[in-house]
Amino acid sequence: MTNLSYPPKRVLMGPGPSDVHSRVLQAMARPTVGHLDPYFVELMDDTKRLLKYAFKTDNELTFPVSAPGSAGMETCFANLIEQGDKVIVLQNGVFGGRMKENVVRMGGECILQETPWGEAVQPSALEELLNDHDDVKIVAFVHAETSTGALSDAQALSKVAHKFGCLVIVDTVTSLAGSELLVDEWELDAVYSGSQKCLSCTPGISPVTFSQRAINKIKSRKTPCQSWFLDLNLVMGYWGEASKRSYHHTAPVNALYGFHESLVMLHEEGLENSWKRHIEMHEKLIAGLESIGLKALVKKQDRIPQLNAVLFDSAIDEAAIRTKLLNQYDLEIGAGLGPFAGKIWRIGLMGTSASLSNVNHCINSLKSLLP
Amino acid sequence: MTNLSYPPKRVLMGPGPSDVHSRVLQAMARPTVGHLDPYFVELMDDTKRLLKYAFKTDNELTFPVSAPGSAGMETCFANLIEQGDKVIVLQNGVFGGRMKENVVRMGGECILQETPWGEAVQPSALEELLNDHDDVKIVAFVHAETSTGALSDAQALSKVAHKFGCLVIVDTVTSLAGSELLVDEWELDAVYSGSQKCLSCTPGISPVTFSQRAINKIKSRKTPCQSWFLDLNLVMGYWGEASKRSYHHTAPVNALYGFHESLVMLHEEGLENSWKRHIEMHEKLIAGLESIGLKALVKKQDRIPQLNAVLFDSAIDEAAIRTKLLNQYDLEIGAGLGPFAGKIWRIGLMGTSASLSNVNHCINSLKSLLP
Repeated sequence: MTNLSYPPKRVLMGPGPSDVHSRVLQAMARPTVGHLDPYFVELMDDTKRLLKYAFKTDNELTFPVSAPGSAGMETCFANLIEQGDKVIVLQNGVFGGRMKENVVRMGGECILQETPWGEAVQPSALEELLNDHDDVKIVAFVHAETSTGALSDAQALSKVAHKFGCLVIVDTVTSLAGSELLVDEWELDAVYSGSQKCLSCTPGISPVTFSQRAINKIKSRKTPCQSWFLDLNLVMGYWGEASKRSYHHTAPVNALYGFHESLVMLHEEGLENSWKRHIEMHEKLIAGLESIGLKALVKKQDRIPQLNAVLFDSAIDEAAIRTKLLNQYDLEIGAGLGPFAGKIWRIGLMGTSASLSNVNHCINSLKSLLP
Repeated sequence: MTNLSYPPKRVLMGPGPSDVHSRVLQAMARPTVGHLDPYFVELMDDTKRLLKYAFKTDNELTFPVSAPGSAGMETCFANLIEQGDKVIVLQNGVFGGRMKENVVRMGGECILQETPWGEAVQPSALEELLNDHDDVKIVAFVHAETSTGALSDAQALSKVAHKFGCLVIVDTVTSLAGSELLVDEWELDAVYSGSQKCLSCTPGISPVTFSQRAINKIKSRKTPCQSWFLDLNLVMGYWGEASKRSYHHTAPVNALYGFHESLVMLHEEGLENSWKRHIEMHEKLIAGLESIGLKALVKKQDRIPQLNAVLFDSAIDEAAIRTKLLNQYDLEIGAGLGPFAGKIWRIGLMGTSASLSNVNHCINSLKSLLP
């Protein structure tokens, strides 16, 4: 029938998924109910409430997209862009490139501003660009670039964009619950994240939130959204007011049990405590890495605590070391992507993975394998 | 923190999700591994192998889309349609209407053929339509219409479509593993289904399979697929040959544990035995319904065993009865949709739900509530 064995128990310190707490795993195994069951409607409401807490927002349109982070990204771009709209994408890594792909496929005109990988995107550069281009509708950028570990100033970028009347789309896949993120105070308009990073849920769910400005734009579209599955004018009827809910698609009931449990756990710890824990573990990790001769790629003030890009001696066989970490220590760390392939490791400290035992296991394991 | 209680244990006899076996639920709770872990690569390969068995196909491009059935549908339409392509949609219920929506949003020209709801789509009507229209590229239809319970002859429809050089897109959301479905023998080109029907997995995954003819069309597109997330030219690199796998999106690892387990269970029972069990339970259900004065909507030869559309006396308060079934008997059955809202019930016998105990529970519960 199948030769597949039981999965190994890994320590997940790559760019995600992160370690999933047994409470979340057990929640996934709760009895399935129908997606229109009164119990499921309660689950949806409680999930929205907890998610607003995590995003620091009162946005009514705050919910988990029934698919991975890439679909959350596409939800933002597909709903906000109409044919010919000018969109500025500020790229400083892989995921900015994916934003550009989204703009082009939605029929938008992409103005790409490239910042060296590993550096934060500069608000002053955005201001120059907006002075040079008329009629830009949207500015899109990545808050915490998972491919390099650089954190940009989302508040300052948003302020510049709004000065020019633009909406902002922000990728918070790696920042949500790990770094300070204040959706309402920073006036972010369309924000997407992933379940498998600092929320430490299983992968497959993409939380999103939309400001009233974004909703106004979506409701006044002249052409329908290119995607039926991701069309917020339809999805709003499903995730909107409980009394008016109409069938759109069949939600991933059990995945949402797990997602809800991860939000309950975040609320129990407290959002600010979670941010603080990520910084504390990051500092211990960096100190440990430096003690064995490894250095961070990103300069200190731009580092994302939960995603540590690490430079190593180019003489080592980095892929062999990652394989040994996995096989001998059940430890997963991430490889570099794009121009950083073979040049950096990406060590994640996300959600449950941001623990002292993980930091120690990582440092000791690496120490034993480095020449 | 949360006021949400533990979910109730329902008997799921609606249009899906169906009852999920504890083996599948427990599989969802297995330890999460990374989506590039060697273990996950093995899981992907074994899942593809078992899914080919379920679809009766040797198609290499057979895999589960990381999102619900609606996204599987969109994967087929978004990848096969280019701007201006003529597409015939044969509609006999809600889901044919959704196909039309997909065609329009992908920039195709939709030729809609409407068949009365509750009846099978006729191959002769398709042949007439194809004689009347030049240069049709695609014919799309629903094998088993979940909104009415009518089964169409997918083999005959496919034969007519191919005679005119068209590709066929087939919705097998409710038929896969419940009714005879022979993807290769019937020469179906793009086929999508859902995890939560006759496979009795949790909702959220959409198995798909594509013929070489479909792949040729996808590879020779003049314009990129409108969706980045669903673009098969990219997804092929992720779900294709294990040795060449490249990162596309983060797969829903734990949902795929459950999905794999449901496929293992199907293989253990045997596909043909599963089809037979669905027919046997259907016959018992219909006999039981008739014994309490209820009648099937669809004529005998067109009925889908696993989705029974049932007519009732228009004097009864049907919504109140469904509420009592849920509250007093923990039994979910489905309401009518569209023109059949308030006029029919949809009683599902899908996957694990197709059991004698469910049939008896349903008949006895209904009997106690009917006037």
